[in-house]
Amino acid sequence: MVVETKSARFDSIALDSGATLSPVEIAYETYGSLSADRSNAILITHAFTGDAHAAGISEETGKPGWWDNMIGPGKAFDTDRYFVICSNVLGGCQGTTGPGSVNPATGRPYALTFPVITIRDMVRLQRMLIDSLGIPRLLSVAGGSMGGMQALEWAVSYPDMVLSTIPIATTWRHSAQQIAFNEVGRQAIMADPDWAGGDYYDTKPPARGLSVARMVGHITYMSDESMREKFGRRLREKEKFGFDFGVDFEVESYLRYRGNQFVSRFDANSYLYITKAEDYFDLTNGTGRLAEAFRKSDTRFLVISFTSDWLYPTYQSQEIVRVLRRINGDVAYCDLQSNYGHDAFLVDIAEQTEIVRGFLASTARMARAA
Amino acid sequence: MVVETKSARFDSIALDSGATLSPVEIAYETYGSLSADRSNAILITHAFTGDAHAAGISEETGKPGWWDNMIGPGKAFDTDRYFVICSNVLGGCQGTTGPGSVNPATGRPYALTFPVITIRDMVRLQRMLIDSLGIPRLLSVAGGSMGGMQALEWAVSYPDMVLSTIPIATTWRHSAQQIAFNEVGRQAIMADPDWAGGDYYDTKPPARGLSVARMVGHITYMSDESMREKFGRRLREKEKFGFDFGVDFEVESYLRYRGNQFVSRFDANSYLYITKAEDYFDLTNGTGRLAEAFRKSDTRFLVISFTSDWLYPTYQSQEIVRVLRRINGDVAYCDLQSNYGHDAFLVDIAEQTEIVRGFLASTARMARAA
Repeated sequence: MVVETKSARFDSIALDSGATLSPVEIAYETYGSLSADRSNAILITHAFTGDAHAAGISEETGKPGWWDNMIGPGKAFDTDRYFVICSNVLGGCQGTTGPGSVNPATGRPYALTFPVITIRDMVRLQRMLIDSLGIPRLLSVAGGSMGGMQALEWAVSYPDMVLSTIPIATTWRHSAQQIAFNEVGRQAIMADPDWAGGDYYDTKPPARGLSVARMVGHITYMSDESMREKFGRRLREKEKFGFDFGVDFEVESYLRYRGNQFVSRFDANSYLYITKAEDYFDLTNGTGRLAEAFRKSDTRFLVISFTSDWLYPTYQSQEIVRVLRRINGDVAYCDLQSNYGHDAFLVDIAEQTEIVRGFLASTARMARAA
Repeated sequence: MVVETKSARFDSIALDSGATLSPVEIAYETYGSLSADRSNAILITHAFTGDAHAAGISEETGKPGWWDNMIGPGKAFDTDRYFVICSNVLGGCQGTTGPGSVNPATGRPYALTFPVITIRDMVRLQRMLIDSLGIPRLLSVAGGSMGGMQALEWAVSYPDMVLSTIPIATTWRHSAQQIAFNEVGRQAIMADPDWAGGDYYDTKPPARGLSVARMVGHITYMSDESMREKFGRRLREKEKFGFDFGVDFEVESYLRYRGNQFVSRFDANSYLYITKAEDYFDLTNGTGRLAEAFRKSDTRFLVISFTSDWLYPTYQSQEIVRVLRRINGDVAYCDLQSNYGHDAFLVDIAEQTEIVRGFLASTARMARAA
C-alpha cells in the first residue's frame, strides 16, 4: 500500500496563547475509504517525534509508517472497514506549520518567534482538518504517549465529535519527573552553541545537543529489562576495556547511532515547542478536578497502559480510569504485560490489536444502533 | 567538629590497565581515634561525585560532610567508638590524583593522557592509604552507590583486610540502563565545544555540557514520588504558561540550579573517567560467576537497598544476597522502605542508622571473641 502525504491549508488558527498563526498548513495521510454515511473515520494522533506517515509505504521515502503494524487491511485499525487519518502535529517539522516554517510576514523561518503552542492547539488544527474532510463525527481518536494526550483532549474539547477515544501509555498531565526529562532534552539543545538562540536555519542545526536530547529520550522509552535483553553488557569492538572514551558497550553505540540518526529528521526548535506543549498539558487547566473535565463528554474510552512503562507509568492511566468510573463513564481499561517499556505501544501489538479491534467493532455497532 | 582534609603521597601505583601513575596523591579525612590495638578502623567509600569530606565541618569551606548525618559521636558510624576514614577516589578532582592533576613529566594537566582507571584501582590506592596509617585490618568498609562497589571490591580483593562490608544501594555490575545513563552524561560533556578533547584547563571548562550531565544524574537520583512531593507541577514566576523557553516549573529551576552549581566543584574529565570506571566494574571480571568471586572472602556483609531506588534497583542487591546465601556467606539484608529513590542512602537515615549501628557492634564483638 503506497501512500502519499497530502497537505491542507487554512487561513489562520487562533491559539491558546492568544496569538494567531496565519496561514497554517497541516500534513496528513489517509488509509481506507470514507463510507457513504461518513461514519467510519478514525483519527490517529502521533507521539512526540512521530509524523503523518502512520501506515503503508511512503511514496516519497519508501518507508513503512510508524504504526504500520496496527493500521491496514485486517489489522487493529482495519482499513477494509475504517477510514483512518493521521496528521502531523502543529509545531512539528514534517509538513505541518512549525518553528522551522517560513513566516510569510518576514520571509524567514519563525524560529523562536513561533507562538507557544499547546496540546489543545494541536487538536484544534486537527479539528479544522476533519471539518474540511467533511467528517461530522469521528468513530474514534487513538494514540499513544503524546498521541494519547491529544485523544483525551479531543474527548474533552469536542465531545460531540468523538464517539470513542483510545488513550494509550499516556497521562492527563505530566508529572515533575516527566517535565524534568523533557527539560534535560531542552537544556541539551540550548547548551549547543549551534542552537544560536534558535536562529540556526541559515547555518547548521544544533546536532550535538539534539542528539544528546534524543539519547535521554531513548533510555526513557525502553525498560531496564528490554535494554538488558537487547544489549546486556556486551562489549563492542574491543576485547577488554578501552583506553579512550570511545564506544565500549553495545548500548553506547546504539544510543549514539539513534541520536545521530534523529538529527537528520527532526528540527531542534520543534523539539523545544512540542516538549513544552506536553509539559503544559493539563486536562483540568490546573484545577486538578478531572471528573469535571470529563463530565461534558459521553465518549467511550479504551485506556491502555503497559506494565514495564516507567515513563508513563500505569498509575497515571489508572487515575484516568478511576475518575471515569466515578462519573459512571463508559471506560474499558487494560494494563498489558510487556517488557518493552514505553515503546510497547509501538512494538508489542498482539494483545493490543485484539483489544482495539473489539473496542472499535462494538463502538461501530453502538453507533449503528443509535 | 572541625575537620581538616589531609593528603598522603605515594611514589607510584600500578593500574589494572597496565599503566603506572607516579607519583599519586590521595586526599583523606579521619574522624575519631584509632584504638591502641588498631582494631576499630572503618573506611567510608564515597559515591560518584563525593569527596573525602564525609563528616564534621570542613576547616576550609565551613560545610558539613556529605554523610554527616551518619558519621559522628553517637551516630551510625559512632566516632566515640570507631576511627572513621574517608578518602577521595583515584581519578577524582577533590585532592586525589585525577585527570586534572599536573603530570610531572610534562608540567601540564594529564587531561585525556590520564590512564583509564577501575574501581579496583580506586580500592588499591585506598589500601595503600590504610597500610600507611598502620591499620592491619578494617572493621568495616561501607559506602553507597559507587561507594558500595568499592566496598564489594574490598571484600573480594583484600578479604583478609576487611572484617565486614556494607554495600548500600549498589550493584556488582552495571546494567545496560545504568551504562546508558552514564553514556548520556559523557556525550553531553563531549558535545560541548569547550570540552576541546579534554584539553580545557587553560581555557574554560565545558560548563554547559557538564551541567546537562548533572541534570540527568539528578533525575535518576530521585524517585517519581519524591519529585512529585518536592515540586509537583508548581509553576515558577509566571502565572500561566510562558512564551519563551525560560523556566516555567519549579522542577526546571531546581535542575538548572543544581546543574550550574555542580560545574563549580567538579571536573568534567573526572566525570568521564569515573563513570567509565563504574561501567567497567564487574566483580566477576566478565565471568558472571559471582559465587566464585565471593568464595575467597569470609567477610560479613550487610546489604541495604531502598524500595524506590530505580537507578540501583532492589533486584541488584538481591542478586548479591542470593549468591552469598548460596555459598553460606555471612550476610544480612534489608530493603528499606523509602520514597527518596537512590538519594535515600544519603537522606533517609533513621532506619539505616539503627541497622548499621547494630551490625558494626556485632562485628566488633565477633572480632574481640576471635
